[in-house]
Amino acid sequence: MVKSTEGNNPRQSRRINRTLVLQLLRTHGRLSGFDLAKRSGLSLTATYNVVEELLAAGVLVEHGVGQSRGGRRPILYSLNPSAGYVVGVDVSGHAAAAESFSLCGDPVGRIEVPFEPTRSASILASVLEAVACVVRKVPGPLLGIGVGAPGLVDTLHGTVLQSANLGWLDLPLGQIVSARFRRPVIVDNDANVAALAESWYGAGRGYRSLVYVRIDTGIGAGMVLGGQLYRGEWGVSGELGHTTIDPDGTVCTCGRTGCLETIATVPAIIQRVCSLRGGAMTGNGPGFNEVVSAAYAGDAVARRVLREAGKYLGAALGNLVNLLSPAILVLAGRVAGSGPLLWEPMIAELRHRALSPAAGAVRVTRAELGDRAGIVGAATVVLEQVFSLSHEDWLPGLKPKGRSRSRREHDEDWDAGGDVQKAAGPGR
Amino acid sequence: MVKSTEGNNPRQSRRINRTLVLQLLRTHGRLSGFDLAKRSGLSLTATYNVVEELLAAGVLVEHGVGQSRGGRRPILYSLNPSAGYVVGVDVSGHAAAAESFSLCGDPVGRIEVPFEPTRSASILASVLEAVACVVRKVPGPLLGIGVGAPGLVDTLHGTVLQSANLGWLDLPLGQIVSARFRRPVIVDNDANVAALAESWYGAGRGYRSLVYVRIDTGIGAGMVLGGQLYRGEWGVSGELGHTTIDPDGTVCTCGRTGCLETIATVPAIIQRVCSLRGGAMTGNGPGFNEVVSAAYAGDAVARRVLREAGKYLGAALGNLVNLLSPAILVLAGRVAGSGPLLWEPMIAELRHRALSPAAGAVRVTRAELGDRAGIVGAATVVLEQVFSLSHEDWLPGLKPKGRSRSRREHDEDWDAGGDVQKAAGPGR
Repeated sequence: MVKSTEGNNPRQSRRINRTLVLQLLRTHGRLSGFDLAKRSGLSLTATYNVVEELLAAGVLVEHGVGQSRGGRRPILYSLNPSAGYVVGVDVSGHAAAAESFSLCGDPVGRIEVPFEPTRSASILASVLEAVACVVRKVPGPLLGIGVGAPGLVDTLHGTVLQSANLGWLDLPLGQIVSARFRRPVIVDNDANVAALAESWYGAGRGYRSLVYVRIDTGIGAGMVLGGQLYRGEWGVSGELGHTTIDPDGTVCTCGRTGCLETIATVPAIIQRVCSLRGGAMTGNGPGFNEVVSAAYAGDAVARRVLREAGKYLGAALGNLVNLLSPAILVLAGRVAGSGPLLWEPMIAELRHRALSPAAGAVRVTRAELGDRAGIVGAATVVLEQVFSLSHEDWLPGLKPKGRSRSRREHDEDWDAGGDVQKAAGPGR
Repeated sequence: MVKSTEGNNPRQSRRINRTLVLQLLRTHGRLSGFDLAKRSGLSLTATYNVVEELLAAGVLVEHGVGQSRGGRRPILYSLNPSAGYVVGVDVSGHAAAAESFSLCGDPVGRIEVPFEPTRSASILASVLEAVACVVRKVPGPLLGIGVGAPGLVDTLHGTVLQSANLGWLDLPLGQIVSARFRRPVIVDNDANVAALAESWYGAGRGYRSLVYVRIDTGIGAGMVLGGQLYRGEWGVSGELGHTTIDPDGTVCTCGRTGCLETIATVPAIIQRVCSLRGGAMTGNGPGFNEVVSAAYAGDAVARRVLREAGKYLGAALGNLVNLLSPAILVLAGRVAGSGPLLWEPMIAELRHRALSPAAGAVRVTRAELGDRAGIVGAATVVLEQVFSLSHEDWLPGLKPKGRSRSRREHDEDWDAGGDVQKAAGPGR
């Protein structure tokens, strides 16, 4: 939460005060002017200045009346859901899914455009088509588009550096989508966006520091530290799947040896079961569900492979907890969801590896948003900007008139943002 | 840097404005009122209000005159070094060292009190004696005491949870020192304090995100993320030495198996050389310097052990860089300083493990402060508070008069602090 101000740089002060009011209405739904003032620390005058401005810009609406405190019942204010819309895009599996959300985070419209996973150009075409379909039906101003993609993403430049699943290499996805739809675009790693979604709407609500780990065909982490998505210095972070678990181990898809992904992903688990059963891995090997079912039916090999995967995951998560000490770990994906045969040895190893009582007490839980995390998160990385000190760049009708804002002013906004990197946005 | 304000909560606004001025004078040495206003974004009136108040409290002094901008040459202001002093304590090896520093970070007086490493009560007595000696000679108000200790430290409560080197277990060191000297005390892990010292005064100057790793008798990391010391949710973080490198590997001193410390610390390296030479480890085995000398003289076993230690370190650092993506890695300790036979394979493995070009480009450098990092850092964790929004709790003459500050006001200060945990301080 930013600090209140009515300082001598009126443009900057107004931005800060507006951010306070916007964030309060986002988290509380609707509030009276009195309650907005009380919770923001602003004076009533300053609060109503902001409220009037936001009402005039159509960002707020009057929304019924509240309880009387002795006099007239006060007018309540809420965000105007139709003041603007954001689009989230999830590119994974066999389809590009796009969905629009109101300023309040309510879903508006959704579409899925299937693609041929082996043709990376067709994937990009599907993304653009999905966005176009949803954008056409957005019933108001489009504020921005967020895209979550699997693989290595350079958030600063909106570039997918490498996505083995999609066959993308150094693809300037942000530029492409932004040029096509003329709106700001944020491209981020799928685990980062899911971490933010779980933090805002899912298992991580109310925690200031969360690490989200998705364990499925790959293993990726997203971190919300101090209430904000942490992206590292270079816009690439959270690459937990290629943690070296055994420097002399099996060769990974990344070309390195002994990565966690060689042991604890869906394909690794299937492959280990096949190889322990003595058969070579073929196109007709068991699916992941079959492996899991076999394990719970008593199959010794399947049980052993799940147990070992759990143990290695627990070791990697223990390392992470010892390093970062988050309040909560949120685990997603089919491997994390394969039940107690994997979960119990994982937790045991994690607790065993934890060096301090506090680290050992970290809350570990399943993700709540399931398949929705990717698309909701992609929209949420845009909403995070809309409700930040940079909101003028995203919300219509609030741009300062007269001389354009200086670069320095813009930078100063971000200094207050702690360790969040600049996300790709307008003017960049 | 905090945001400027002249808001309607005058006490809070004054705190914010003061923090801006204090931080500018800390980093710039001396500035005119005009330059303070320009750099802080405050009006000249607001700036001079703060300057007058800080002059009256003795925190600032007039310090010569600057260049004329057409009229009279302006008065320059600087921190008053004798406005207050902080004491840093380094407990490691065979002595407790305490040193006092002025508000400007200049060293004032220092003492070392040797202790018997096997007697943990004697160590505590040495700490208290060292602090007492230095405190007696501090030529002005004592603002606070910072203690850096090896091992697991719960910063929130000022408790050393576990220090194998010192034989301490759940020692409420902060309470003990605070009760004795009646000043606020911050106890932190030695790697954390060194990380902050390198960030303020050493190899990390100018970088917003830094990971410091000390590789010596143990391996510990400290993180400065977004300009602030990151302590995790529970006040315990940075435990890199017990990263699992091989879940089925050698048993570590912590009782777990396959920790990085079983391969790449000073004792581990000596032990591996002895065991590869076929002799059991005895009290008369080679020292670390002998191992290093033998390696550079061509001894195949010593070379191999250093090379392998480097490779495992590189893998662990690569994991860390892939996860956190810091701007710079600062490495300290005898192992990190053992020259190219270890450094080169370490860097090669780190670059090999780095998943993105950005992660591969992370700057890796030796620490600059050497043995001074611990004691300077212990003082710096106190100075970090003195120059924070909480400065009223640390600087004399600035406490608000009248009703005492509410708990809520106090908490709000810290909300602006991003992910820094509350450090032990007055009122706690």
